[in-house]
Amino acid sequence: MKLTKQNLDQRLDHLYDAIIVGGGAGGLSAAIYLQRYGLSCLVVEKGRGRSFWMQELRNYLGLPPETPGRDLLKHGQEHILALGADYLRGFVEEVRDEGDTFAVKVKVGRQSSIYPVFRSKYVIAASGIIDRLPHLDNMQNVYDYAGYNLHVCMICDGYEMMDQRCGLFVGSEGAINTAFVLNWFTPYITVFTHGQVEVGSEMRQKLRDHGYPLIETPIKQFLGHNHTMTGVELIDGSTVELDTGLVAMGSHYHNEYLKGIESLEWNGENLVTDNMCRTSHPRIFAVGDLKEGLNQVSIAVADGTLAATAIWRDIRRVSEPRRWEQNLIGAVP
Amino acid sequence: MKLTKQNLDQRLDHLYDAIIVGGGAGGLSAAIYLQRYGLSCLVVEKGRGRSFWMQELRNYLGLPPETPGRDLLKHGQEHILALGADYLRGFVEEVRDEGDTFAVKVKVGRQSSIYPVFRSKYVIAASGIIDRLPHLDNMQNVYDYAGYNLHVCMICDGYEMMDQRCGLFVGSEGAINTAFVLNWFTPYITVFTHGQVEVGSEMRQKLRDHGYPLIETPIKQFLGHNHTMTGVELIDGSTVELDTGLVAMGSHYHNEYLKGIESLEWNGENLVTDNMCRTSHPRIFAVGDLKEGLNQVSIAVADGTLAATAIWRDIRRVSEPRRWEQNLIGAVP
Repeated sequence: MKLTKQNLDQRLDHLYDAIIVGGGAGGLSAAIYLQRYGLSCLVVEKGRGRSFWMQELRNYLGLPPETPGRDLLKHGQEHILALGADYLRGFVEEVRDEGDTFAVKVKVGRQSSIYPVFRSKYVIAASGIIDRLPHLDNMQNVYDYAGYNLHVCMICDGYEMMDQRCGLFVGSEGAINTAFVLNWFTPYITVFTHGQVEVGSEMRQKLRDHGYPLIETPIKQFLGHNHTMTGVELIDGSTVELDTGLVAMGSHYHNEYLKGIESLEWNGENLVTDNMCRTSHPRIFAVGDLKEGLNQVSIAVADGTLAATAIWRDIRRVSEPRRWEQNLIGAVP
Repeated sequence: MKLTKQNLDQRLDHLYDAIIVGGGAGGLSAAIYLQRYGLSCLVVEKGRGRSFWMQELRNYLGLPPETPGRDLLKHGQEHILALGADYLRGFVEEVRDEGDTFAVKVKVGRQSSIYPVFRSKYVIAASGIIDRLPHLDNMQNVYDYAGYNLHVCMICDGYEMMDQRCGLFVGSEGAINTAFVLNWFTPYITVFTHGQVEVGSEMRQKLRDHGYPLIETPIKQFLGHNHTMTGVELIDGSTVELDTGLVAMGSHYHNEYLKGIESLEWNGENLVTDNMCRTSHPRIFAVGDLKEGLNQVSIAVADGTLAATAIWRDIRRVSEPRRWEQNLIGAVP
């Protein structure tokens, strides 16, 4: 059921089989499977994750290409609630390992916040990442285009940029190398550093060799209308016409709540997992963008399947087998 | 475009980037990704695979639980055709490795068949499995219930069998062990061998210890109406009431066309793959049920993503980088 400040105290004495941190594609898929395995779970979703911002989910089998990410999330919420999962809007502040159980502390409510602690046997870290965006004085100007034709994922949206004039917005010198993959889709690339990146002579030469302009003047604003970005105005008043853009400024990983668990193995900000999405802690799983690999909806959904199945196998193997008692009393044919 | 006997000769001189054998969940997802990477592919679908038979797709995020498998396939076909993929109804008879290319021989048409040969750089084996069903004189009686409440996948449909009287239909003694996992969902299990399995004394004792009747008399027919199976009538005229059933008789793997490729590593009938679904042959990938792992729609869809991405990376890395020629002539800012 949907938990709120009003009813969540009903669950404070419950030991969930799993608490899922994050209600994106990976977390919702895990919840579908856990509930269908007859296990109990709570999904804690902070809202506005990466899939929420997707305007069109163009590469997920079964949904029309123009389906917004938020529709996937809405259908998934209805699906898991119908299966009896619990769902709470809140922000997981800390996961504490108590030995056989986890204590998961959640901040609920932006105002007059409360901090309930829920308990579970397993934790699935499905809290994902959020892309960093160019920082302008007027961020609304960025949000007007991000997720429309100002993209954040080349694998998802390279196809939409095919042979178009594309701005590549970088947050580090290393990110400029994105240009040399993006050129599979379009060679008409202009790199923007927003005045915040030191670019060495070798990289400058590489860009010149490919014919990709490097613009280091800070951006004043994106130009366009109706969520269609048509170019960039720089602080010197000059403009650059563009048909599309790709932001490659790195991501923020929502994994702070796990930093107190000592035995976890990390690769940078990614959790290292086995082929069932189990981390180096036997009762913590990581799915979707938090683990290593492709950051794709289809991968997160499969990860949820794998993590839930591994948890079910664990719990099943330590459970007493169910006998058909009536037949044990009488004669069995 | 949709290829038919009438127009397929237009493609006989084309070198596809990939030919995908099988238009189920894995093959369609691979085609979506390949086309969106700007690569060309042909999907060859023989029809009536495992997902076609699913009456309700209860565990795939984003689709209503009651969505039939054939709707997923239909939407996927429309999706890949809109992206420019080729799609052909036919049966792949042979894949021959020609060194840099594959020659893929397809039987098209059940009557007056023709045998065109298509060529590609990569092959994705996505042809899956089909579940063996109890063999009765009147097979229509089996098809009336299979995929409704006579299930073939415990992971998919264990939830639907919760605490119900369940017939377990086995094709080997080993398959009887399915009962000791199925009892997670229900202990009211009756095992049917249809008179075709030798059951040893140890297994008989194990069944007795759990209270699960073993019925070795051959089945005459399933009882029920409107696709709801309500029990079994045996050839001796007796009947057994059931609420649901699980068929565990093994599967037929559609992989004969690969048997001429010597370097492929198999684990039984499954292809061994790496974490991008690449087999031991560097230009052959296997996705979905043909590879090791869970036979789930969500897994197949992710596999398609992985295989297509690995192929794109291969092809991109040996391609000339695209320069912005105009800027190479003049001065670049």
